[in-house]
Amino acid sequence: MKLLRVGTAGSERPALLDAEGILRDLSGLVPDIDGALLTDDGALARIRAAADSGELPVLDAAGLRVGPPLGRIGKIVCIGLNYHDHARETGAQPPSEPVVFFKAPDTVVGPHDTVLVPRGSAKTDWEVELAVVVGRTARYLDSAEEALAHVAGYTVAHDVSEREFQIERGGTWDKGKNCETFNPLGPWLVTADEVPDPQDLRLRLWVNGKLRQDGTTAEQIFPVGEVVRYVSRFMTLYPGDVINTGTPAGVAMGQPEPKPYLRAGDVVELEISGLGRQRQELKDA
Amino acid sequence: MKLLRVGTAGSERPALLDAEGILRDLSGLVPDIDGALLTDDGALARIRAAADSGELPVLDAAGLRVGPPLGRIGKIVCIGLNYHDHARETGAQPPSEPVVFFKAPDTVVGPHDTVLVPRGSAKTDWEVELAVVVGRTARYLDSAEEALAHVAGYTVAHDVSEREFQIERGGTWDKGKNCETFNPLGPWLVTADEVPDPQDLRLRLWVNGKLRQDGTTAEQIFPVGEVVRYVSRFMTLYPGDVINTGTPAGVAMGQPEPKPYLRAGDVVELEISGLGRQRQELKDA
Repeated sequence: MKLLRVGTAGSERPALLDAEGILRDLSGLVPDIDGALLTDDGALARIRAAADSGELPVLDAAGLRVGPPLGRIGKIVCIGLNYHDHARETGAQPPSEPVVFFKAPDTVVGPHDTVLVPRGSAKTDWEVELAVVVGRTARYLDSAEEALAHVAGYTVAHDVSEREFQIERGGTWDKGKNCETFNPLGPWLVTADEVPDPQDLRLRLWVNGKLRQDGTTAEQIFPVGEVVRYVSRFMTLYPGDVINTGTPAGVAMGQPEPKPYLRAGDVVELEISGLGRQRQELKDA
Repeated sequence: MKLLRVGTAGSERPALLDAEGILRDLSGLVPDIDGALLTDDGALARIRAAADSGELPVLDAAGLRVGPPLGRIGKIVCIGLNYHDHARETGAQPPSEPVVFFKAPDTVVGPHDTVLVPRGSAKTDWEVELAVVVGRTARYLDSAEEALAHVAGYTVAHDVSEREFQIERGGTWDKGKNCETFNPLGPWLVTADEVPDPQDLRLRLWVNGKLRQDGTTAEQIFPVGEVVRYVSRFMTLYPGDVINTGTPAGVAMGQPEPKPYLRAGDVVELEISGLGRQRQELKDA
């Protein structure tokens, strides 16, 4: 199922994009998608049955804003340098174990919302990523198979990054990863049962219409199950937590000089096969 | 005022520790401390008036658990290597600008709750820290004075750290900072008006009764106002966000071999002048 949240920022309500591409209102059936999806109490089965029987009211999609697919995100764990081709373009050795950093949940905006170029930024960069949504509390997992059973679903994340803040200002990467609006998320949360192989997804990103990233999750150094297992050994993952699993090659930082970092007026579009498409216009903060 | 939350984990209610050391129930006056404290709508003045007139019901403190003083934390921003003496003991140069990393809000527990030594840990370490609670949305602040006006209050944080996970496992520090129970917080939130000089606070920490850290915020490389100003240039700070402002010298990592890292059964106590005391027993995860 494709589950989403629609409405003005902060007042989104749950909806379903059905098999015919019709947007249907879930707010009469479940108070919010997070609660339905993440508590595993049969709500998903009820949504599915209602959708199949055509019971859910149709929503007029025209002019309706799509918000992030989750309303309550506990934490966003990010994996760095997780694609062979991206590690090469940054000049880094492929890591021997996953590189972990964080984005704050308050960086999340909807898939078509404005992204702000931070004040003083000269190196705002793009990163299309497969985001994993945790569905069940995960601690000290032993295997990748067990880890995949804790995944509620998948969505698209734009891990916007300021490279000077991230790399040249001392300390850890978090400083360049947490600027306001730096994590567009969505449009939908696709439940895990509809993503048979998370290592066979194509990721693409365009800037002003020019294709800049064109990768596949087959290139991930640490696949999704291993990432979830690994992270669960260092911290507890809770329902509603998100893991951004890294970006393929093609970021601005990896281009020849002058590097085409983002500026106000640029338009970024990104897509993962089966998980939908995002589009953001950049503005100055 | 000393504001706190008491009750079983997840069901705490707001309370006030009054000038006579009597615990008083705030739940009839404000639905929660976070909302009262952080929205700046006169609730604090109402609490103060009710406390002064003795109107608030007395709570029987015996056996009552003290939870973290905030129920809804958006993010926890941490400053690394922010004391001259601690930078020296780790062998690091004093940073030229603040080092930033993150703890997830789900690491927060009450000041007297159990702290878990992670599975596979050989280097679990202590860090007493002054925690700043943000009271007003802060973005791109210009001065330390302006920054201090965005602070709701102060509390004690124990920034528990696993040094192998933090430093020897690749990537950023976050991996060693986010294990379950790794951020005891409290006992109280002391409102900023009662902390006339945040750079004149004594911090102490004992392990099994032995004094291990004895520092002062006068040793901070970047004082509180500068930290808040600096962070606000990279990310937006929201009411309820917490900033752990770094630890003074005396951590286990800085001791001669064999370094006295924490094990199950150890007891850590920590205290900041005027902000109260914590006590945790360590157990295996």
